[in-house]
Amino acid sequence: MEKKTLLTNCPDAKGLIAQITNICQKHQLNIVKNNEFVDHQYNRFFMRTEIEGIFNDHTLLADLDLNLPTGSSRSLINSTTRKRIVILVTKEAHCLGDILMKSTYGGIDVEIAAVIGNYDTLEDLVTKFNIPYHTVSHEGLTREEHEDKVLEAIAPYTPDYVILAKYMRILTPKFVEAYSNRLINIHHSFLPAFIGAKPYQQAFDRGVKIIGATAHFVNNDLDEGPIITQDVAHIDHAYSAEELAKAGRDVEKSVLSRALQQVLDDKVFVYANRTVVFK
Amino acid sequence: MEKKTLLTNCPDAKGLIAQITNICQKHQLNIVKNNEFVDHQYNRFFMRTEIEGIFNDHTLLADLDLNLPTGSSRSLINSTTRKRIVILVTKEAHCLGDILMKSTYGGIDVEIAAVIGNYDTLEDLVTKFNIPYHTVSHEGLTREEHEDKVLEAIAPYTPDYVILAKYMRILTPKFVEAYSNRLINIHHSFLPAFIGAKPYQQAFDRGVKIIGATAHFVNNDLDEGPIITQDVAHIDHAYSAEELAKAGRDVEKSVLSRALQQVLDDKVFVYANRTVVFK
Amino acid sequence: MEKKTLLTNCPDAKGLIAQITNICQKHQLNIVKNNEFVDHQYNRFFMRTEIEGIFNDHTLLADLDLNLPTGSSRSLINSTTRKRIVILVTKEAHCLGDILMKSTYGGIDVEIAAVIGNYDTLEDLVTKFNIPYHTVSHEGLTREEHEDKVLEAIAPYTPDYVILAKYMRILTPKFVEAYSNRLINIHHSFLPAFIGAKPYQQAFDRGVKIIGATAHFVNNDLDEGPIITQDVAHIDHAYSAEELAKAGRDVEKSVLSRALQQVLDDKVFVYANRTVVFK
Amino acid sequence: MEKKTLLTNCPDAKGLIAQITNICQKHQLNIVKNNEFVDHQYNRFFMRTEIEGIFNDHTLLADLDLNLPTGSSRSLINSTTRKRIVILVTKEAHCLGDILMKSTYGGIDVEIAAVIGNYDTLEDLVTKFNIPYHTVSHEGLTREEHEDKVLEAIAPYTPDYVILAKYMRILTPKFVEAYSNRLINIHHSFLPAFIGAKPYQQAFDRGVKIIGATAHFVNNDLDEGPIITQDVAHIDHAYSAEELAKAGRDVEKSVLSRALQQVLDDKVFVYANRTVVFK
Repeated sequence: MEKKTLLTNCPDAKGLIAQITNICQKHQLNIVKNNEFVDHQYNRFFMRTEIEGIFNDHTLLADLDLNLPTGSSRSLINSTTRKRIVILVTKEAHCLGDILMKSTYGGIDVEIAAVIGNYDTLEDLVTKFNIPYHTVSHEGLTREEHEDKVLEAIAPYTPDYVILAKYMRILTPKFVEAYSNRLINIHHSFLPAFIGAKPYQQAFDRGVKIIGATAHFVNNDLDEGPIITQDVAHIDHAYSAEELAKAGRDVEKSVLSRALQQVLDDKVFVYANRTVVFK
Repeated sequence: MEKKTLLTNCPDAKGLIAQITNICQKHQLNIVKNNEFVDHQYNRFFMRTEIEGIFNDHTLLADLDLNLPTGSSRSLINSTTRKRIVILVTKEAHCLGDILMKSTYGGIDVEIAAVIGNYDTLEDLVTKFNIPYHTVSHEGLTREEHEDKVLEAIAPYTPDYVILAKYMRILTPKFVEAYSNRLINIHHSFLPAFIGAKPYQQAFDRGVKIIGATAHFVNNDLDEGPIITQDVAHIDHAYSAEELAKAGRDVEKSVLSRALQQVLDDKVFVYANRTVVFK
Repeated sequence: MEKKTLLTNCPDAKGLIAQITNICQKHQLNIVKNNEFVDHQYNRFFMRTEIEGIFNDHTLLADLDLNLPTGSSRSLINSTTRKRIVILVTKEAHCLGDILMKSTYGGIDVEIAAVIGNYDTLEDLVTKFNIPYHTVSHEGLTREEHEDKVLEAIAPYTPDYVILAKYMRILTPKFVEAYSNRLINIHHSFLPAFIGAKPYQQAFDRGVKIIGATAHFVNNDLDEGPIITQDVAHIDHAYSAEELAKAGRDVEKSVLSRALQQVLDDKVFVYANRTVVFK
Repeated sequence: MEKKTLLTNCPDAKGLIAQITNICQKHQLNIVKNNEFVDHQYNRFFMRTEIEGIFNDHTLLADLDLNLPTGSSRSLINSTTRKRIVILVTKEAHCLGDILMKSTYGGIDVEIAAVIGNYDTLEDLVTKFNIPYHTVSHEGLTREEHEDKVLEAIAPYTPDYVILAKYMRILTPKFVEAYSNRLINIHHSFLPAFIGAKPYQQAFDRGVKIIGATAHFVNNDLDEGPIITQDVAHIDHAYSAEELAKAGRDVEKSVLSRALQQVLDDKVFVYANRTVVFK
């Protein structure tokens, strides 16, 4: 018996749940878990269905295509195939370390194919876990030249997702398009507060009483991509900007790990610069 | 066009979603929102379906009864009918006040049919809102005698739910059975911590760093009923037992109001001393 | 025996704690509670001292003035004198209602001298609590003309603080200066995110996963004043802009009430567009 | 110039702050940060003072002893000396991994002298970080025999604190006394809820909506020691007992790391089965 996840994202219409579940039944598939959401503003229907049984993917998808409205997208994902990621880093270890720990000792079921850094600072950490590390220095290169080298380094690993785990460089549209809706960043603020550089210094200067972190897909506008998950920590007047950054690191790593888990579980839909994240 | 909510609670079986949604479609009803949950431990299926259309309740329910497995329960609730509650209180105003404010000025759509107190302390507050207040003193009465009088006072209002908004008296099984799964209490601790009397003093004595509140259905075992919702507040060593109680009041009132809203929205299923609470 | 609170806000210097506590001892005063904070970036010292004893305010303050560095400010506040506030509102009842409930039935020890609204919507609520309500309509008036009338309405009550409990009008510098560091606003977002109008619509459009509220002193730049306290609520994709606003109301009221309590307890210092808030 | 932290824990009395700060001044020491707390129930005074200057520890402490009331304890700790810990583990990696990561890559400034496990499961992880790992199997040994071996293994490292990072064995009073107030445990529940074994299964059975974790000093009564810090995570009906455990791990590791940091910063006082934890 196989386990698959069917993701449906289509214009809303009457009877969609019945249609999709009927097709599952016709194929003698058992629905283990089902979630739907209708966005009434965008008139869009989202459904995530965990299915067990003997699959004939081709005829199942053909049946769906016959019945779903124009403008639908659907995919059938093998739930037992481990996904593969490449992680990009600069110098900070905390987000990377959390993913390394969880993928090795339990918590996130993912294959880290490689880690790529624009410095060699974290090579030592990554090699502890027997994972390839590539230093692709940006020094002396234009942004485009550097990115081409990073893209080249990533390509052989054919990752499902590319994770920016405190990768402190701005990406060009070319890079972003190459991994459209598969590029996840952790931003060290509660977006949209403190867009841009040095958010903890900005937070300190503004005298906020709460700091946060945001995991989001990257699109062409810096820090403007669809938000996957966010969390916060309470702070007070006694925190210096450095202490804010330190307090923020625990939030960052837990937010990024949580977002990664949600994406790996195929629980996240993206549309209209928003996400639907099923539980 | 009418709006109704269909609640289905039955043994799990293959094809339930398809069956129920097909019946809706056959009756030309439109599903606006749908949630399901399968408890694989108890092998139980829960579904909440918001439906729009022209209803023939009798034939719809008959169709469902024909198709659902033995041991199913289902109900069809008119979403636009305002529900009616009676609130029981003792002397503390905060939970009562929050519900009064929200039902009058927006936030909770409910009819407060009456408030009954074993003291007259809160009569002044309740009459400000033009709601009947009955003082049913327990003095000089046995627990059973007092409860009979309270039950008598409640009866004419035929409430959908009875809310214990800091009602500081223990109820007998007779009372609990009279409003089985319709009796909601706010307990001033993060259950199951600090069961019983004076939870804030207990919390102080134990030196906890977080306090909480729990809204739950009442069953025969004190503080052991199915939990609807809980929340917490962070505290520190500098809080006295009285300050804990004060900090706790804001948690209590928001937890009770939230649970009440969830119950009024027909989002809460009860089974096996647990709840399923749909979003 | 009297109870007073001494607030000291001065340039940092060696031995300040010893100097101030020695002066208290010399005057045979007992320190019940003491908090200090040194902002090393601004080189500024803050101390809040709860004192019991027989006070000669004049000689105590003279002793302090003799010993504190140039540029110091200090004040001695009678802890047992109830403070007086005027509340400004527009149409929303939740923040106002929470303060009314708490000042009447316990939770915040304050005298609400009057409530002033630019509509009469909330008159009914306020008069339930036997508190004067003034409608000062802005219709047909310039901003300046309207504000002059509001200032006139406030003046006879000589409030310690003016609370903007969802008062939906922008204030001029004249108004702000009149109640400098005594004017507290609740902003319905997690500042500095979503500055300006319709923050919940902005939050919805941005697809955030957490919403918040901010209580802050008002200065001349809209939504830029010193933050007193903030809190958040987790939300998800299923919330419409209206549901965000509803979920936000509970956060708003608890944040404003908490900030008000902190200010009434003389626990908040303001400097450099920041606050120090002692526990 | 040296940096030290003075911890004072004594019966409350008039003028204590003045006395201690005067002594600092007499010794020409500069107070960088100061916190006090008076527990009025236990009539106990706590003060933590960060001091800079040229120290003569002997005369400073002698001066303090001369002036503090009978029953006082005080200690002067070199803030720049790195503390040393030994970590005890069983099979779970998450708490250990977080401390390893933070001590190596930033976040917690501590020397992990050794890790001791009753299985060899985590040897591989620990040796990645070039830290000695000792397997001290309990198999075939009485509790006392096993503990003697563990104590023997710890002794040569003379740790300041012993950290139980998911060490799943109950300790005897002998062990606890050997490291009195220096033995820190992470309990995988929001104590005092779910004392004892399998708290996540207990939480599942009770149907709670929030789970938590508690870091506490260990005393002779299992799970009854002074609480240092606690935190929680919101969960819902859809979590199985295993998913509760998984969700709990992130809370456990952040709570233990936070408690460890507070203890290493000499911010935690213990008395009367309670803690005072300064910010």
